[in-house]
This record gives sequence, structure tokens and C-alpha cells, in this order.
Amino acid sequence: MGVHTQRLTLNTKGDCDVVDLTARLRDAVKASGVREGVATVFVPGSTAAVTTIEHEPGLVADLRSAFDRLVPRDLSYGHNRGGESNGHSHVRAALVGPSVSVPVLGGNPALGTWQQLVVIDFDDRARSREVIVQVVGED
Amino acid sequence: MGVHTQRLTLNTKGDCDVVDLTARLRDAVKASGVREGVATVFVPGSTAAVTTIEHEPGLVADLRSAFDRLVPRDLSYGHNRGGESNGHSHVRAALVGPSVSVPVLGGNPALGTWQQLVVIDFDDRARSREVIVQVVGED
Amino acid sequence: MGVHTQRLTLNTKGDCDVVDLTARLRDAVKASGVREGVATVFVPGSTAAVTTIEHEPGLVADLRSAFDRLVPRDLSYGHNRGGESNGHSHVRAALVGPSVSVPVLGGNPALGTWQQLVVIDFDDRARSREVIVQVVGED
Repeated sequence: MGVHTQRLTLNTKGDCDVVDLTARLRDAVKASGVREGVATVFVPGSTAAVTTIEHEPGLVADLRSAFDRLVPRDLSYGHNRGGESNGHSHVRAALVGPSVSVPVLGGNPALGTWQQLVVIDFDDRARSREVIVQVVGED
Repeated sequence: MGVHTQRLTLNTKGDCDVVDLTARLRDAVKASGVREGVATVFVPGSTAAVTTIEHEPGLVADLRSAFDRLVPRDLSYGHNRGGESNGHSHVRAALVGPSVSVPVLGGNPALGTWQQLVVIDFDDRARSREVIVQVVGED
Repeated sequence: MGVHTQRLTLNTKGDCDVVDLTARLRDAVKASGVREGVATVFVPGSTAAVTTIEHEPGLVADLRSAFDRLVPRDLSYGHNRGGESNGHSHVRAALVGPSVSVPVLGGNPALGTWQQLVVIDFDDRARSREVIVQVVGED
């Protein structure tokens, strides 16, 4: 049993940018040497979130529309009273959550065929992000 | 310390079918022999999700009503332009997320008395699903 | 590798009370002696949830407003037919989910600077809650 940590860095465009990290997750699992275990994917920061979705342009647009409808940008946010403009980003990120735990089976993350691991950057500007992939398990 | 993986198979009716897996989670934890550790419950696939709820008929209906209201089936979805009909299912699943991590204490998952571990199948048709329960911990 | 469990107890005011547990999470990680690993934060109970947010009064109010809008208290809930009044609390908790997994790096949870680990009590009354912090990893 061992713990293997990788920090992925990525540039996001913000405004509900949905970034597919599946290939990098697979690489991180492979590099860990773990055959059976669990990969925790976590995004530090309070305006981004981690989940899974089929990453195709139609659905990415659908997800954005859903957030625009559910947590609109132009409501009155207490967070924005001090000059901030991303109150909606924080609320959206808290709803989705910062972590997903993916089992590792036979050296691969157990994602479905059409299921991609994504980071969503809800902030209202481009950001440089770090995502942590931590694999705990047996070689 | 060890890693113990079980694959559960289940048939779902789709359309926000909320399936109680608590008994099977308890059995999987028991079969693992782990006394202290963590059970990761993960559903491969992009139209299902894992969470907890009190699994009683009133609440299951309430949860369905909430999703019908928040992410309605009959909006215009980019995903459905190619002939698909389950754009809403994907968006709902991404909101809830594919994994829950439950601590194992004294050989049992640490769920509350009225808290059931459920898989929600948001797809718009009956499906056969696999759910992965992975227990990492000490005998 | 080892498993270290701590049970935190807290009193909540209910009605979407957002409680910052970051300092207690840091303490639990420190007490575990784990340098590299993962901290699972889990709330037993079906009317509370775990997520992360920047815990400042404006945003806490924004999060409450969002839940009042998305899952209002005064809809007709099947759960409330038997005399209960917290159908909305259960639905909200199921949406957010009961667990977050935070990597531990260098003996600290890898939260962002403005990212706090919070428990949200959605119940409609004050409660005494237990939150489980379980750290799995290497000294």
C-alpha cells in the first residue's frame, strides 16, 4: 500500500469552463504504479468543482445553460457587495463540490466509456488552476 | 491495510429511479473484513449518480419532483440534437456526482439511522448498472 | 499506512446553518500524524451535507438564498404528509451529498486559501451533529 500524489496544472477560461482531465487522470494512475486502489481528484479553490460528464460540446453547453438558469450571474449577491463579481461562481462550486473518488481497477480509473472526469471553473475570469490527483492503493 | 473491491450489478428502471444499496454496501464491507477504513461507492456511467437520502416513498417522489423542476426533461438540449433524448439525465448526474466516500467504523459503514446509500439512475430508459464498492482499510 | 478516525461533535442551528470545520479538520489531520494521504469528511444523517465554500457572511447568505430558491421550504412534499416538516431539508442534503475527500499534503489538508470545509445543516431545527474525519495515509 502506498500514497502517490500528483499536482496537475491547467489554464482555464473561467465562466463555467468544463475541462476534461480524463487522459491526465489515467496518466497519473499509471505513473503511480497502483493496480487496485482509489484515486481522489480534488480542486483547491472555492470557485471550481470536480465531477464527471460525457464531455461533448452539446452537453457542455447544456450544463452551462443549467447553471445560468439555476444560479444566475446577475442576481444580487451578498458576496459582491465588497466589489467582487463572482458570487454566483462560489455558490455553483459549493453545489457541485470539490472532490470525486474514482476506484482504480487493474491499473485504470473505473470510469464508464462515455464518462469523463472534469474540472469546472465557475470563476468569471481566466485562471491558472492546480488539481490534485492522489492515488492510494496496492502495486 | 488492504484494498477490497466488489462490483455490484443492478437493474434500474431509469427516469430518476432511486435504488437503495445500503444492505449491499453493508454486505460488501462485511465481506471485505475491514474494521476501520473507507468505502468508496462509485457508479461508472454518465447518467447515474451516487448520494444518500432517507429512502422512503414520499421523499423519493420529492427528489424526482425537484429534478423535474430544476433540470426539466423538455428543455432544448444540445446533446439531443443528434437524436439522443437524455440530455437532462446527463446534466442531473453531473450535478449530483458519481461517488460517495463512507467511513467504515467497527466493520460497518457509518451511515445515520435514516440515511440510505442510493444510486439514482437518471437515464430515460431501464438500464443494467454496475456499481463499484471499494473498501480500503485495516482488518 | 494507517487509518485514523476522529468524531467531531457540533451544535447547529439548522435551517441551512453553514458551519466552518476547517480548523477542526486541520487539527484532526495533525493529530493523526499522517503526512501524505486523504482525509474523508462524512456527516451521518440525511438532512446535512458536506462541501467547501469561502465562509464569509455574504456568501453564506447567498448560499441560503440559492437553496430557498432552488428547493423551497413551502412546496408540497410527500415526506411531510406524515407530519414531518423537513422534506426540503432532505432534498437539499441529497443534492449536495454527505462526503468530501481532501488530500493531505505535508501534514495539511490541501484546501485553497479561501476554501473552507463546511457542514451545512439543512434541517428545520437546531441539532447536535457528529461529523467523522477519517485520515488514511503515511506518517
